[in-house]
Amino acid sequence: MTTLKNDRFLRALTGQPVDMTPVWMMRQAGRYLPEYRATRKQAGDFMSLCKSPELACEVTLQPLRRYAMDAAILFSDILTIPDAMGQGLYFSEGEGPRFRKVVRSEQDVEQLPELDTPRDLGYVLDAVSTIRRELNGSVPLIGFSGSPWTLATYMIEGSGSKDFRHAKAFMFNQPQAMHLLLDKLARAVTNYLNAQIAAGAQAVQIFDTWGGVLSTHAYREFSLAYMKKIVAGLTRESEGRHVPVILFTKNGGLWLEDIAASACDCVGLDWTVDIGAARARIGEQVSLQGNMDPSILYASPASIREEVGRILRDFGPGSGHVFNLGHGITPDVDPDNVAVFVESVHELSRQYHQGQA
Amino acid sequence: MTTLKNDRFLRALTGQPVDMTPVWMMRQAGRYLPEYRATRKQAGDFMSLCKSPELACEVTLQPLRRYAMDAAILFSDILTIPDAMGQGLYFSEGEGPRFRKVVRSEQDVEQLPELDTPRDLGYVLDAVSTIRRELNGSVPLIGFSGSPWTLATYMIEGSGSKDFRHAKAFMFNQPQAMHLLLDKLARAVTNYLNAQIAAGAQAVQIFDTWGGVLSTHAYREFSLAYMKKIVAGLTRESEGRHVPVILFTKNGGLWLEDIAASACDCVGLDWTVDIGAARARIGEQVSLQGNMDPSILYASPASIREEVGRILRDFGPGSGHVFNLGHGITPDVDPDNVAVFVESVHELSRQYHQGQA
Repeated sequence: MTTLKNDRFLRALTGQPVDMTPVWMMRQAGRYLPEYRATRKQAGDFMSLCKSPELACEVTLQPLRRYAMDAAILFSDILTIPDAMGQGLYFSEGEGPRFRKVVRSEQDVEQLPELDTPRDLGYVLDAVSTIRRELNGSVPLIGFSGSPWTLATYMIEGSGSKDFRHAKAFMFNQPQAMHLLLDKLARAVTNYLNAQIAAGAQAVQIFDTWGGVLSTHAYREFSLAYMKKIVAGLTRESEGRHVPVILFTKNGGLWLEDIAASACDCVGLDWTVDIGAARARIGEQVSLQGNMDPSILYASPASIREEVGRILRDFGPGSGHVFNLGHGITPDVDPDNVAVFVESVHELSRQYHQGQA
Repeated sequence: MTTLKNDRFLRALTGQPVDMTPVWMMRQAGRYLPEYRATRKQAGDFMSLCKSPELACEVTLQPLRRYAMDAAILFSDILTIPDAMGQGLYFSEGEGPRFRKVVRSEQDVEQLPELDTPRDLGYVLDAVSTIRRELNGSVPLIGFSGSPWTLATYMIEGSGSKDFRHAKAFMFNQPQAMHLLLDKLARAVTNYLNAQIAAGAQAVQIFDTWGGVLSTHAYREFSLAYMKKIVAGLTRESEGRHVPVILFTKNGGLWLEDIAASACDCVGLDWTVDIGAARARIGEQVSLQGNMDPSILYASPASIREEVGRILRDFGPGSGHVFNLGHGITPDVDPDNVAVFVESVHELSRQYHQGQA
């Protein structure tokens, strides 16, 4: 077993005692950091940054140099899989991700290739092993992927969307083709995450960014079912340690019981959910990750500290909580406010772990 | 009491027996209708359309000429109140609503005038009485307003927003000023809705479009508390009939019990909520309105009919359900699909009301 200097994050994910609540931030390697913007400029475009293991490692480590984060997360994009399938991912300034090809028929789905992860996504695995080496046991490394439904929405729409009209019409008019697509994606995600684990990822998170735009019925059938399938196929032990799995469905607060029943270790919460109520609902089964509104990082240090204290108080004493934002940090946040956030979590959480660690 | 040829909508709102489930659509007078686009063109800009009682009446009636809707809804905008307060509402092509002035300080809040509804929003009241006259008792007329929190977000941001950073920073850093603003808005909304009722609105709906972007705590304190205040101040009887109140918080599915406890008659549901689960949670206290995903109107007639059937089945037998979309209809929907939607609701719902009406 590799020695980890700080295993607070992994311990909290499985409900083991900790001295203080671990914290990291979704999109912590991101545009709010001037050093990130400099490295991205150096890389040229966003995908070149993802595809260079050295630069991906550099931006992964940047937030750890500034803040006492309890985990690193692989710097990559959620859309690497459809890109590797030949859909032609690109980023147009200020418009988010786009694909050169779109999936609109059963034939389009059938023509998508089965991926060979080491061959088609080797750059991600190289980034994972490079980051692990550079982390040198300081904190654990999180690997991740987009959920099948979330990947499918981008592949069908060809971009982000406000109403997901094409993805939803596809799902309603051609449910069989949709299931074929989601099944293909679930296989690719399973292999991808297992390869990340083999390369050194010590926990993995599935980002279901768009599961929350579905009805309850459609969520269960078209998003959660495929995440369950992935969880069932993941390597759960590596380097002599359990590899925890975190599922995060944004706007999934209505479905916490269903998500917790997926055999994941931890459920990510967006900020609309009351974390105390969530703990009462599913805290016996899984740990919880979240859930401060990222927009509060635009408020004053005093307000940030107060909100951190409120969430810790609502969760209450004991382990089983990984502090995070309820969604990714936004680009215009003052990096000093992130320091206040991280320090407040550590400082204010000690009282809830006394006599437990 | 005025005679109503079709009172199915009002009956369902108070749980009285009906022969079939009533249906209307949020934004039913909207851009998906070619005749709406023609009238809007004639009016010039969007606000001129709102401010002409004759044209507002015309577009209100347009969907009723095509479809067997069980209610009409006043054609207007949710932002008429801040516009009347002098904030300078305008619509820039493809960018949604904008304000010339923004509210960013306690002083800005203090300078907002108290409105005199008949003087400052007389054009809306004229539209209400014109529509009532033209409806001639065919179906009831719904009046409406934006919720205080929703109005406040636009007034502070100056436009729509993805992250509501200014509104949320204002709320966290200057909670007192925020409460002052929300209180002023709640008074204005109460007077505005009461004036609509006096002018002939037979039910009213409060649109809390952006309550769902708040944490549970913030929702209760900054959105729901003010809607409760409004409900408590509304005229609940007019023309010898009860005037039902509908509260609709988009993405409010986590808070249904709180919303139902507001003394409203009906809770509007977006499409993420399972209506059967919602009925089990709050169906004893209130009626439910909703909740088909508007994007399903992009799917085939068969898919639309199937989804309508699914929602009716999930709600189950008996009254207390007003069928609607889970949000406003989108501009590119085929008007023929709306006909399928409305006809399916009426046709497929009869079986759930047999022996009850």
